Amino acid sequence: MRDFSTDHRWLSINTATLRKQWRLDRIIDECGRRDIRTIAPWRDQVAAVGLAAVARQLRDTGIGLSGYCRGGFYPAADAAGLAAALADNRRALDEACTLGAPCLVLVVGSFPGALQGQPLHHDIARVRAEVRDGIAATLEHARQRGMPLAIEPLHPMQAAERACVNTLEQALDLCDELDPAGTGALGVAVDMYHVWWDPKLASQIARAGRQRLLAFHVCDWLVPTRDLVNDRGMMGDGVIELRKARAAMEAAGYGGHAEVEIFSEHWWSLPGEQVLQTCIERHRSVV
Amino acid sequence: MRDFSTDHRWLSINTATLRKQWRLDRIIDECGRRDIRTIAPWRDQVAAVGLAAVARQLRDTGIGLSGYCRGGFYPAADAAGLAAALADNRRALDEACTLGAPCLVLVVGSFPGALQGQPLHHDIARVRAEVRDGIAATLEHARQRGMPLAIEPLHPMQAAERACVNTLEQALDLCDELDPAGTGALGVAVDMYHVWWDPKLASQIARAGRQRLLAFHVCDWLVPTRDLVNDRGMMGDGVIELRKARAAMEAAGYGGHAEVEIFSEHWWSLPGEQVLQTCIERHRSVV
Repeated sequence: MRDFSTDHRWLSINTATLRKQWRLDRIIDECGRRDIRTIAPWRDQVAAVGLAAVARQLRDTGIGLSGYCRGGFYPAADAAGLAAALADNRRALDEACTLGAPCLVLVVGSFPGALQGQPLHHDIARVRAEVRDGIAATLEHARQRGMPLAIEPLHPMQAAERACVNTLEQALDLCDELDPAGTGALGVAVDMYHVWWDPKLASQIARAGRQRLLAFHVCDWLVPTRDLVNDRGMMGDGVIELRKARAAMEAAGYGGHAEVEIFSEHWWSLPGEQVLQTCIERHRSVV
Repeated sequence: MRDFSTDHRWLSINTATLRKQWRLDRIIDECGRRDIRTIAPWRDQVAAVGLAAVARQLRDTGIGLSGYCRGGFYPAADAAGLAAALADNRRALDEACTLGAPCLVLVVGSFPGALQGQPLHHDIARVRAEVRDGIAATLEHARQRGMPLAIEPLHPMQAAERACVNTLEQALDLCDELDPAGTGALGVAVDMYHVWWDPKLASQIARAGRQRLLAFHVCDWLVPTRDLVNDRGMMGDGVIELRKARAAMEAAGYGGHAEVEIFSEHWWSLPGEQVLQTCIERHRSVV
């Protein structure tokens, strides 16, 4: 297992962690200043600065990506909506290529309208089928571009609004169905916030193996958790056994970054400098 | 599949649903008045009225139980705590026998101290082992008394505070380990609030079969859900496919009650009469 205690070369910052403090160009500068060499930006943050400008800034600073957030959200109420989702995923793929991302992360979506508080139906088998078909369609384009797709299972408490893929096993079943040869074109993003509770976590990480383990996201689960979306904790402040999880990932062949992704009203309310410094310290001490 | 639309003989009221409106003796009276023949009471509600008095009232009114809430909470920080939990579970068993319950529901517990906001450790393998050992010990006494134990998997968002058993598959694996012969002494309580999102729900209900399916709890998952504990919805107000789930339960051999269990600040704020009337109507129309 790699030693993270003496430097932070394997630290990546998911830029949602700082989305309320800074624009993306500032985030990149602040990361560079602290020798954080890797980020995972969100599409809306890229768009706010401009795709070409971000790509140039990354080249100039030598900062790379651990993933691009995000494709997915496949289910829709009608055929036009399904087609629009596929087109949007192709654009996300193009952007990921432009930015040199190692993978496009998929938050697959669930009941149409649910994110707006008005689910148009609640047929979970239907949205799961739409997700499978959507990933299959995107995968064709992704293979052509050489851009791996990383399915991110989300916590079951987000099953209605954001993702109807809720366990690592379910995500890997999709991988086996759509990419039976295990080419590396399709895999999973293991976000510990979403999967820490899973009794099959270790066995499914082992099952995934190097070819399927495309990303490793860290933060912590607070006790108590007060909000279903924006109350994630800093590593070390909750109950997730991060080092044990990283050991399992590495034993299965993963050798990539630990990407800090914290949606938190608390951490968004603090100075960005303090957040980054804490990420660096906790990456060394508890990840 | 049984027709629930013309009467409510298979309706049971979990008395937590009305815990802020009425004491248990009043709940029993109000249920009897509406020809609701079955309830599932909580230990603290029974204690507030007195075990003997509740047993007498149930006999006098002819009202039965669909389950007794609850045993469990096995993990502890030290040997004395583990022993105290076992002793408490034996008392819960005795009470369940006195009340003529068909099963004692187990909410198995998780990190000691977490429910009070101060987890004393976060070794999930340890608490899962303590839960297995605790159920094994309780099962010996339960067999002697002829009182089945129903393991209730709780939603993964409650994995730190309330239960480290979070899927039906995990609960059934425990059943297979501790009661390999499938004697009926150990089974599961399927609470749809906790398991609706599970991609293996249907397959695990089928796996469980009649001997293991000891209880079926209904309410609904609201979109959005604003609280991790006390924001459950009334059947029909959310996204859970209750009728599909009941069909799967019955196909697997379940022929018991649909027990309404709603922890909700909203429903606790309404008159108990209105809550019971709505439970009856929704039981007929959507369960």
